[in-house]
Amino acid sequence: MLGALKYYLKQGLKQGLRRASDTFASRTARQLPPGYWGLAAHPQRGLTLGNVALHELLERHGSPLLVLDIQALKRNARQFVGDGTGGGLEVFYSYKTNPVAFSLSTLHQQGVGAEVISAYELWLALRLGVPADRIVYNGPVKSEASMRDAIARDIGLITANHAEELDGLARIAAEMGKRPRTGIRVSMSQGWSGQFGVPAGEALQAFSRARSLASLDVRALHAHRGGMIGSEAELTALVTEVLGLSDLLADRLGIELSILDFGGSLGTPSVGYPTATQRRLNRTLLRDLPAPDVTAALGIERYVSILTMMVGEHFARVSRPRPRIFVEPGRSMTSNTQLLLTTVHALKGAGDRTYAIMDGGINIAEPTRGEYHQLLAVNRINEPPSRVYTVVGPICTPADTLYPAARLPELSVGDSLCIMDAGAYFVPFATSFSYPQPAIVALDGDREILVRRAEQFEDMAARDIVRV
Amino acid sequence: MLGALKYYLKQGLKQGLRRASDTFASRTARQLPPGYWGLAAHPQRGLTLGNVALHELLERHGSPLLVLDIQALKRNARQFVGDGTGGGLEVFYSYKTNPVAFSLSTLHQQGVGAEVISAYELWLALRLGVPADRIVYNGPVKSEASMRDAIARDIGLITANHAEELDGLARIAAEMGKRPRTGIRVSMSQGWSGQFGVPAGEALQAFSRARSLASLDVRALHAHRGGMIGSEAELTALVTEVLGLSDLLADRLGIELSILDFGGSLGTPSVGYPTATQRRLNRTLLRDLPAPDVTAALGIERYVSILTMMVGEHFARVSRPRPRIFVEPGRSMTSNTQLLLTTVHALKGAGDRTYAIMDGGINIAEPTRGEYHQLLAVNRINEPPSRVYTVVGPICTPADTLYPAARLPELSVGDSLCIMDAGAYFVPFATSFSYPQPAIVALDGDREILVRRAEQFEDMAARDIVRV
Repeated sequence: MLGALKYYLKQGLKQGLRRASDTFASRTARQLPPGYWGLAAHPQRGLTLGNVALHELLERHGSPLLVLDIQALKRNARQFVGDGTGGGLEVFYSYKTNPVAFSLSTLHQQGVGAEVISAYELWLALRLGVPADRIVYNGPVKSEASMRDAIARDIGLITANHAEELDGLARIAAEMGKRPRTGIRVSMSQGWSGQFGVPAGEALQAFSRARSLASLDVRALHAHRGGMIGSEAELTALVTEVLGLSDLLADRLGIELSILDFGGSLGTPSVGYPTATQRRLNRTLLRDLPAPDVTAALGIERYVSILTMMVGEHFARVSRPRPRIFVEPGRSMTSNTQLLLTTVHALKGAGDRTYAIMDGGINIAEPTRGEYHQLLAVNRINEPPSRVYTVVGPICTPADTLYPAARLPELSVGDSLCIMDAGAYFVPFATSFSYPQPAIVALDGDREILVRRAEQFEDMAARDIVRV
Repeated sequence: MLGALKYYLKQGLKQGLRRASDTFASRTARQLPPGYWGLAAHPQRGLTLGNVALHELLERHGSPLLVLDIQALKRNARQFVGDGTGGGLEVFYSYKTNPVAFSLSTLHQQGVGAEVISAYELWLALRLGVPADRIVYNGPVKSEASMRDAIARDIGLITANHAEELDGLARIAAEMGKRPRTGIRVSMSQGWSGQFGVPAGEALQAFSRARSLASLDVRALHAHRGGMIGSEAELTALVTEVLGLSDLLADRLGIELSILDFGGSLGTPSVGYPTATQRRLNRTLLRDLPAPDVTAALGIERYVSILTMMVGEHFARVSRPRPRIFVEPGRSMTSNTQLLLTTVHALKGAGDRTYAIMDGGINIAEPTRGEYHQLLAVNRINEPPSRVYTVVGPICTPADTLYPAARLPELSVGDSLCIMDAGAYFVPFATSFSYPQPAIVALDGDREILVRRAEQFEDMAARDIVRV
């Protein structure tokens, strides 16, 4: 009884706060228009990409469904690779970000190489026909078998994640009578450190040690930053620090690096990172999460241009040959090239909000828990957003909440929702928790290609050897 | 430069705090002994289960590896099911918790039924030979096809997750000329609500509505609590509320329920939930996370005894026939019956701590991020815990940290660690992020059975239809 009283008092307080919040500030925030991703709002067919209505895709391929926009993927690749006339940088896609064979192959056809962090990804790149010299092998856990394989094939670059890895690499190379092109990962003052990289203060020591190992051809400084490069200031800070370290290596040790590998970490303009306060206001007062300001973000072309210019000018100034520039984009290459469609299975009323219970949740859309991803009502895109929905998935845990409060048009069972920017970390973080993983369809104008079939029940139990 | 200065000042402050912390309070906290799980510390062979040395299992089956203790599983099942002479409760294992066919079959042989929340799990239960009347179908997203299948087979119980689901269920049943045994999930004052259950205050209305639907045979009140039942007080509060609601249904609506379904939510004594402060002290001051007090926890037998006693006494007192009691244990049934073995791939020094880089991380051990799971040094179990390790996985993100600071014996590359209580939510939350999923070996005394083979590279790319 007392519990119930407390509950109602709390509810009343929240309601009051919401009304006050409505009075003093708008609860609705800017959203990105569908056109930002090249989607159109057809008066009858709802959201379309090219001439394909997304809602109709679900009828043909089932729900949930991932949709890859081949044109967007090629555009991103072109922005990174440029016209290929040199003077630019060399691009290696971070396989872990979205390891879908068709997508990877498309990137390789555009002149993008492979950045792999595991024996599986190395196997996949080779299987997709990537020439060994277009592969960079990174990561803290390289199995000995995969290192031997990489060295035997004269892989483009193999990067020691930490100083302790150099001896093992040198031993294997010596046993094989090989001298692999080797990089050393250095953790800079900003971004990740921990298990990743030699601390910048110990870099000279690590390079000196590496050079003393006769079976290693030490070529590269690897400076994947981690976190997110969202502004010019963050990019120039990183580049300045890397150039400084490269000068130091030349001056102190006489090491002229032939490769500077800047890793990845470039953000996707339309993916945001709401603050804890924004999340709380969204959850409790139903205040919209604001879409990120895409005009303020650092885009691919600007990133490429600043990076190549800074490196070029620096080496011209110090009169040393400019090293090759490697980049390893992940999310900036593919995040905005895939979208995720799910279907409203049920609607459950609950006071000031309605639960939209979808057929896909954190099992296939884990990144929505920490990131802003625009949500669009596929077949009601032309109707006004008049109701607040808590968008949840099919898994039996309250953690399976994709959007605590999203303002959408009035929904019905069978409607579909579209989560944008689902091309980074949606696929690798997917689980088969109670539900099979979705199919992936690629669209290229009017062409529609099933590039990954949906998981079947038989697949989910296929590794179980003992059955009754 | 200023950045570096700030960094060193911060490091110095932390060091000082650690020293002060050492002076005033012990940084080491209690751990559970291996014997708690029936493991023994063999002087030469390290940790053993039965006569099997865990370290040697990795040589035979590869690393990482999940190990299922069949004896422990049977013991837990017996504690729930009792001697089967009636008067007790009926047990349905929550499939989603650890959907491993061998483990499920073992439970079914012990008289445990199946609680399923998806079309896949229903398919799996039927495939494992579970009689339809030993299956309970719950969850917020039941596909129409799976509802038809369940109804056609006269499933034991189908539970409406929310009031809105009743009409659809009634329509399907009427079309099929069937009258399925139906329950309604009610969210009680403690535990989960949100997308789950009819609020307790609207339960009468929902049951009244359900009774008016001629094609539903309304039998059960379903009161899965969610969260964790860790004490007698929490259990008795739940049971009291459920009994009160059942009286209300009888008094007001004349509905005599034939089933009270208490769901799951019973905790596992050896799995803890560290506070935010404990986590922070662990991360920054390297203070051990304390193991939970297993003697204070509510065990299976006490849970069963309180539940059956309370329900029995209540219905004797009100002179109404006692309904059947259903429970749907998940973690309390299997958590402590599985362990996860991983291998040290590399060690990276970093000041006051050492990174132990393992071949398995959050890709296969997601629950360690929020829960306390005892960590044991398999082949060094008899050596003193003399060094603090940050135990991380192979995935290239700082989020792949299993233990920010764990006190372990001095480790070498190739050593193995054992994460205890890996039998709940480790398997369903597993991903194939860059690395294949591990095999599962079941041990029964000296018998060793491979019950799930490791994922192969080919499996990971098997659904990709377009290959270059």
